Formats: sequence, structure tokens, C-alpha cells
Amino acid sequence: MSSTVSPLAPKSVPDMPAIRGVRLGTAAAGIRYKGRTDVLLALFDKGTTVAGVFTTSKCPSAPVEWCRAKLKGKTARALVVNSGNANAFTGKTGKQSTALTADIAAKAAGCKTGEIFLASTGVIGEPLDATKFNGVLETLAGEVAPDRWLEAAKAIMTTDTFPKVATAKVKLGKATVTINGMAKGAGMIAPDMATMLSFVFTDAPIAAPALQALLKGGVADTFNAVTIDGDTSTSDTLLAFATGAAAADGAPKITRANDPKLKAFVKAFNEVLANLAEQVARDGEGARKLVEVVVEGATTKASARKVAMSIANSPLVKTAIAGEDANWGRVVMAVGKAGQPANRDKLSISFNGIRVASKGARDPSYNEAEVSEAMKNDTIQIKVAMGLGKGRDRVLTCDLTKEYVAINGDYRS
Amino acid sequence: MSSTVSPLAPKSVPDMPAIRGVRLGTAAAGIRYKGRTDVLLALFDKGTTVAGVFTTSKCPSAPVEWCRAKLKGKTARALVVNSGNANAFTGKTGKQSTALTADIAAKAAGCKTGEIFLASTGVIGEPLDATKFNGVLETLAGEVAPDRWLEAAKAIMTTDTFPKVATAKVKLGKATVTINGMAKGAGMIAPDMATMLSFVFTDAPIAAPALQALLKGGVADTFNAVTIDGDTSTSDTLLAFATGAAAADGAPKITRANDPKLKAFVKAFNEVLANLAEQVARDGEGARKLVEVVVEGATTKASARKVAMSIANSPLVKTAIAGEDANWGRVVMAVGKAGQPANRDKLSISFNGIRVASKGARDPSYNEAEVSEAMKNDTIQIKVAMGLGKGRDRVLTCDLTKEYVAINGDYRS
Repeated sequence: MSSTVSPLAPKSVPDMPAIRGVRLGTAAAGIRYKGRTDVLLALFDKGTTVAGVFTTSKCPSAPVEWCRAKLKGKTARALVVNSGNANAFTGKTGKQSTALTADIAAKAAGCKTGEIFLASTGVIGEPLDATKFNGVLETLAGEVAPDRWLEAAKAIMTTDTFPKVATAKVKLGKATVTINGMAKGAGMIAPDMATMLSFVFTDAPIAAPALQALLKGGVADTFNAVTIDGDTSTSDTLLAFATGAAAADGAPKITRANDPKLKAFVKAFNEVLANLAEQVARDGEGARKLVEVVVEGATTKASARKVAMSIANSPLVKTAIAGEDANWGRVVMAVGKAGQPANRDKLSISFNGIRVASKGARDPSYNEAEVSEAMKNDTIQIKVAMGLGKGRDRVLTCDLTKEYVAINGDYRS
Repeated sequence: MSSTVSPLAPKSVPDMPAIRGVRLGTAAAGIRYKGRTDVLLALFDKGTTVAGVFTTSKCPSAPVEWCRAKLKGKTARALVVNSGNANAFTGKTGKQSTALTADIAAKAAGCKTGEIFLASTGVIGEPLDATKFNGVLETLAGEVAPDRWLEAAKAIMTTDTFPKVATAKVKLGKATVTINGMAKGAGMIAPDMATMLSFVFTDAPIAAPALQALLKGGVADTFNAVTIDGDTSTSDTLLAFATGAAAADGAPKITRANDPKLKAFVKAFNEVLANLAEQVARDGEGARKLVEVVVEGATTKASARKVAMSIANSPLVKTAIAGEDANWGRVVMAVGKAGQPANRDKLSISFNGIRVASKGARDPSYNEAEVSEAMKNDTIQIKVAMGLGKGRDRVLTCDLTKEYVAINGDYRS
């Protein structure tokens, strides 16, 4: 947790309503930090379904491997998240740590270990001493409550400067259901997945396979469209839990993600994901500006995504934004290196709606003073029109500042 | 040109011998900088052959397009390089600028425009006023001399902190031939090509197609194995010129790159390229440490290259090095995101010969004090043993410092 909150943090935090069937608790287990909470326990009522998407890293953390295996059971009774130690690249010890954590949690929750889901975030390569959860989880299980959302979001933070929560209410059939989410991110945020850890909860009755399809569809233009530094964590995890409690109010049971009754829910669910993903970008390590990269006129959406990511991950573009310099030459560079179809002489580029380049050269109406003023804004949109087709996409990122280097050059000490 | 020379600069600059058939001159044409030279003219005797490799950017600069087209003529009589303006993304004006520059140079050199080669480096997206070469190139053509190598290397610098030259002498048949090279780099250095501008000269008699094959083979493990920030310039250019003057001493005329008589020459030629490429890494913007990433035990050499590049381009690895932190967890992260075959539990990682991780966990003999001491060195080797096969490769990079951000956040102002 940094002492200075990102200037891009949302101005207000939403009131997070309770979700029937979910209770939360946090504690200080002393994993790494002093004077703050570092463990979250969420308990779920019987019948809660679960879905998950994870890092594409070839070297995933032990908790990621644990969750992937346990998803087959389709149900969850508890989630244990710790900050301070990622339990990644910890060899056999890492596997033993997840097993021990799950044992302790299962005893505390009164369920099978296969219904326990785990996530860890923090330093990689250090053994996680799971015995620290002994007693802590048992105590927490007696204290959990339905209104601890903000505390929960705080307990999972690492270099984040503010807790990230989002909520929505939406009709499902005649019932009103709730969707709550939390995330932690900050660095090492790149597809796929785009955040280190995020958890979404709902009381809608959705079968596990439908929830999985929903989640997979939802991340494509949200978490997977956010990048901070192009680095991909070994621990990226997004889990969704559906307690089904709203069935008591008449919410229909959903077994297919493409069920027409789910339409409004899908929209709200994706908005919660998008909200959380944007907060992750707003809390990029050292970030002073939120950057939206829009690419249109590409040959396909996939091609637009690749060009947008090339721009969003370019250190030279990101340092220029940090310097409030509308350096569209570097944007051209990043378009050029993306390896996608591009015609230099058809490119147009705008910063915050001001066109600076068109058809392969500086825009005739270019006014440096006007653009420089626009670059002072704390939200910068870079729009690139490729002039080739109808492919369009958008990604979020942040600028690259000296603070990023300071944070990451001194993280372990 | 920065006022502070990189601490990684070579301790001495080699004496650069003359190469028969090559004469050089530099001048201050006032392209952008004040109080320094910014244009280089090299004149070649008749019969000089030429070869080139260029950026893979889909949005190359006008000079890159000019050179690509003129390579078909196989001969060169002059090279004109300017710093301060890259003449990239300058639309029709850019093309007109190259044509005008070539016209002025051809008149000065007394040759055809098709024998003029051009390169420009500096700001992208600003029109290059080629009329500034009027008179300047003509005067230079009367002043060129065979001993101006260091001045030449200085005239092509942008954010470089020291001029980069290298030289070798080697037997070709019974004659001794010379290879001289110069380069400028510093930022936006990533394959392929790996340097913004480099020029290599020899008096060996080598036909253009053989020289082209030689150059293409030589860059793979030299310039294309260097990365500073993963960004790829629109202007990257490496040109080789062979005057053939050593034929007068009995050097055999070479028409095929795989001619056995060329063996020693190829080795020396590649060493000059490797030397220049390393100097580019040593002068990475803001660099305080030279980083060699060695990946061995990968499934193939190509796979090892991809993993090495993933490590070398990772902002989190590079900031850790800047912070003198042997953060091998981030190296694991970078291995994992490379998308190449990897088995976490077979990975071993060393920093400067000290093994910190083996078989998927912290090395039992790990001694933080010992490793921390080693990280103070200004040259850091990260070695990753994948444990899968015999693929091995090596790339060079540098650390990512606050100075990089300062240089690039303030470049245009």
C-alpha cells in the first residue's frame, strides 16, 4: 500500500450492498506487512457456483494451479486471499502451502477442500508460510459479515494506492439481483489476464458452465484490454461466485450464458468488470495519467487490438504522455512495429480529439499550443485512424513515470 | 547529445585507420541542433558495392524507402546522414526531401542520384528542410578526408552520450583488409533492426549480393540481439560499403558469401557488428547497467531468443536491475509470459554466476548478501536454464532507470 493515493483514483467509493449468501472477513496474519490486514476470507452458502479465468503464464503460481483444478467441482464454499506473498515459483513448498491453506480453510468453513478457492499476491519466489493461517481463518469464520466489502478490497492490496470495488443491481426475471466486485492490480498488469486478482459475486442463480462462459466473454474487452507495462503476472486470477440466493425472489435459474433472460444481467456484469479494469489502469504504478488508446479503421478488431496494445505498451509513447508531449511520431513508431497491416500515408492521429496528423504527415491545422494545453489533462485519449477497414478496438493504460521506476526498483527492500 | 557520458561507455576509443576508397566529412547544417555537427558526407570511389538491412516497421521513414529502392543498383558513391530530424512520417514532403538531398549530393559527388544513400535520425513527424544541405554538401565534397571517423560518428549522434566506432584488420587471401564501422543508437532500439543507424566500410572486394548475404547473416546475433525498450524505430538502417580497393594488393574478388576464402573476414566483420551493437546497449537511454540475458536449455535457439527477449524487454526485470535487486521472481514472470515451452519446476536462474533459483524454487544455497553484492556490478548477466533441450541464445539490454523516463519525457522540448 502506497502512502500517496493515485491522482487518478475515483472521486468516490460506491456503497457496497450485501449479497445474500456471501459473508466476508479480513485479518492481519503477518504474511509480510506490518500494521495492516493481509488476508481475506469469504464464505459462501451451499449451492454457490464458481467460474474462473487465469493468467496465460507458462509459469503460473501454485494458487492458480489449485483453482484451475478445483473449478471442475463447480461449487465454492470459501475464498481465501492473501497479500504480501504470491506463492509463485515456490516449487513443492508452494503446492504444500496451497494444500495446507485449503485444509485450514475447509475446517474453518466446514466444507471439503475442493470447495476452497485460493489466491495470493505479492512477492514471487519466496515460500509462503501457510501455518500463519492457523487459528486466523477459524477466528475469521466466526466473524464474517455481509458488509465488509471495502475492508476486503483493502486486505488484498499490494502496491495499489486505493481499494477497488464496483457494484450494480439489475433485473433478472422479476427479481432484482446484485453484482459486487473487487480488484487489486497496479503493476504487472497485462493480458491475459489483465489484473492480478479480481473477484466478482452475485446472488443470481447461474449454473457454473454458464457463469464460466459469461466470465470468458466479459474479460475480452475489459480486463484483457488493460495493460500497465506489458508484463504478465504468474498469479492473475479472476473468479466469479454466484450464490443463487435470488432464486428465492423468483429469479430464473440460468443454465446457458446466451439465455435471452440474461441480457440485462450480462450488460451489468460486464460493466462491473469494465469499472474494475479501469480502476486498475487508474492505479497503474506511478501513473499520473489514464490513457485510452482507440484504434479504428483497422482491417479487423483483432488487428486493431494488436495495434492498440503496441501503442499502449510502448515505453516511448508512455514516457511522452508522462512528459505531456503530444509526440505522435512515437505513435506512428508503435503502429509500425505492431506487425499489422498499416499504410503510413493513410494514418490519422488525434490526442483528446485534436487531430495532429493526417494522411501520413502533420495535420495542416496543427497548433502546438492547443495540443500542449490538452496534454495537461489527466485523461488522455490517443485515437488512431488506420484508414484500411472497419476494425475498431480500445485499450486502457497509463503513463510511464519516474515513480514507476522508483516503485519497481525498490519493491523488495 | 547528452552532457553526461554513460558510465558504461568503453574506456578507450580505437584508432580508426583509413580505408582506401572512403573519404569522410562533417558539417553543421543547422537541421535542429546548435553548436554541433549534424551532417555526414561519405564519398566512395567508383566500383564501391553496397548492401543494407532496415527496420521491419510497417511505417518506415522516407530515407529507408529511398535506400531500399536504390540498393537494386548495387553500387554507391556517397552516403549522406543527418541527425536532428528523422524525416519519418512526413508524407509527400518526406519523399521530396530525400529526392532533393540526393540531387544536391549527386551534384556534389559527381555521380547519379541512384548511387546516393541516405539516412536521417532524430525527431519523427517534422518536415526535413533539405534546402539546408544546399552548399553544405558541395563544400564538404571538397574537404572530405580519409581520417574523419570519430568526427563522423559524432555528427550522427542524437541522444547518444558517446560516439560509437569499431575497427578490425583481417587477411583476405594474401592481402590485409580493413573493416571500419560506426553506429548511433540509444533509444528505440529493438529488433529488427536493432540500431537506428549503423554504417560499415571495407576495402575488401565483395560483390553486392555476397555483401548483402554477409550483412543479413551478421545482424542476427548482433544488432538483432540488442534491445533497449522493445520499441522499434521507423528509421533503423544498417548499410555496408565495400570499395574493393584491396584488390590492388591481391585480395581475391568475392562473389559468394559462403566462399571459404571469406571465413576469417566473416568472423572479423561479425565482431565489428557485435562490438557496435554492444556499444549501442551500453549507451541505452539512462542506462547504468549493461545486462546480458543468456537462455539455455530451451527447446530451440529461436525459442531461447524469444524467452531472452521477453526477459530483456520486461520493465519489471529492468527496473529491478536498476534497483540492484536480484528479483528472480520477475525473471520467472518474464519466462512465463514469453509463450514458449517452459516448465516452471525445471527452471534455474543465476545472476552473475550465482545461482539464486533451481528446479522451481529458491536455491537452497541462496545467500542474499552475496547476490546483493554482485548486483552492484555495472555488468549483469542473467542466465536462465530452461532444462528442456539444447536451444541457447543471448541478448543484450540495459536497465530501466528514472533517467530513461526523464530523457524520453522531455525529448522534444
